[in-house]
Amino acid sequence: MFMKKHTFWKVIENKDVFTAKNRFRIAVQKIKLPNGKVIDDYYQIHFPECILVVPVTPKNKIVCLRHYLHGFKKVGIVLPSGTIEKGELPLETAKRELVEETGYYSKEWRYLGNYGIHNNYGCGKVYFFRANNATKTSNPVSVDIENMETILIDKKCISEFLRKGYIASIGSIAALTLSEMVL
Amino acid sequence: MFMKKHTFWKVIENKDVFTAKNRFRIAVQKIKLPNGKVIDDYYQIHFPECILVVPVTPKNKIVCLRHYLHGFKKVGIVLPSGTIEKGELPLETAKRELVEETGYYSKEWRYLGNYGIHNNYGCGKVYFFRANNATKTSNPVSVDIENMETILIDKKCISEFLRKGYIASIGSIAALTLSEMVL
Repeated sequence: MFMKKHTFWKVIENKDVFTAKNRFRIAVQKIKLPNGKVIDDYYQIHFPECILVVPVTPKNKIVCLRHYLHGFKKVGIVLPSGTIEKGELPLETAKRELVEETGYYSKEWRYLGNYGIHNNYGCGKVYFFRANNATKTSNPVSVDIENMETILIDKKCISEFLRKGYIASIGSIAALTLSEMVL
Repeated sequence: MFMKKHTFWKVIENKDVFTAKNRFRIAVQKIKLPNGKVIDDYYQIHFPECILVVPVTPKNKIVCLRHYLHGFKKVGIVLPSGTIEKGELPLETAKRELVEETGYYSKEWRYLGNYGIHNNYGCGKVYFFRANNATKTSNPVSVDIENMETILIDKKCISEFLRKGYIASIGSIAALTLSEMVL
């Protein structure tokens, strides 16, 4: 279907230049482009992989979280999410985070693909899941430092919430809309 | 509409710990949470702000770019995007990048909001725009190091492209779907 062949870049050198222990790592690379040009300082930001969940209740409401987001310096709505721990499969992380952050549980999971965060620097990969028939079976676990509020958004109101800018992160917007558009 | 009040975190100390000149900056912060707990090492990644454009032609095709994305180590489809230069307004960047990357030009712009990239680390802010009645008036300018291929995706095929995972970045998915859902 796509006609043009694109050549991958060649990494000639790779050096770690900064590490935030257990969080992320910065590398600087010497790159050779397909046209022969060499770039001496192309940065890569290595985050651990993470997941985002679109939990849908039997009454067609989306289970979201509203809290202060220090990365954005504002209060906003996002989907349940989290970092994949060592030895975990993405789906296991998704199930764990959904219960921990919201107290909701689902047996019906659907994988929606994995996507990159930053075209140039990488910043890790995020796996999207949809959890159907999610029901509340426990209370959220306070493992996170955020003071999270669980809110249920009726599917009919998603467009309005998007239009009003209530959904704060590009990851949550992407997972939410992808889940609606492709299923 | 939202009942619960969320308190912002207090930054007690802020120290830059790494700078990739003209690209991004890492700071480590000492944070005081609303419950009084202190966190000694909360990282912030400061990217320059950037834009993403959803260009729509008079024939209802979306102008996209297909190229090798070093951040993801794969070839994929993304929307025209770019960094806001010093002194530029987001809309000016969007107009400039659309012409530079695709050779398409539009007089009909609509702002779709700005959104955060990473809940915790920040990683900058991205402004979404839609450019209606975009028409090709020049050739793309080869200012970027990427060897980009312009492709036109019929709006009717967006769902299929999303489902097949052809749209590579969460930013492009978010802008594309937001543009479809809210307009």
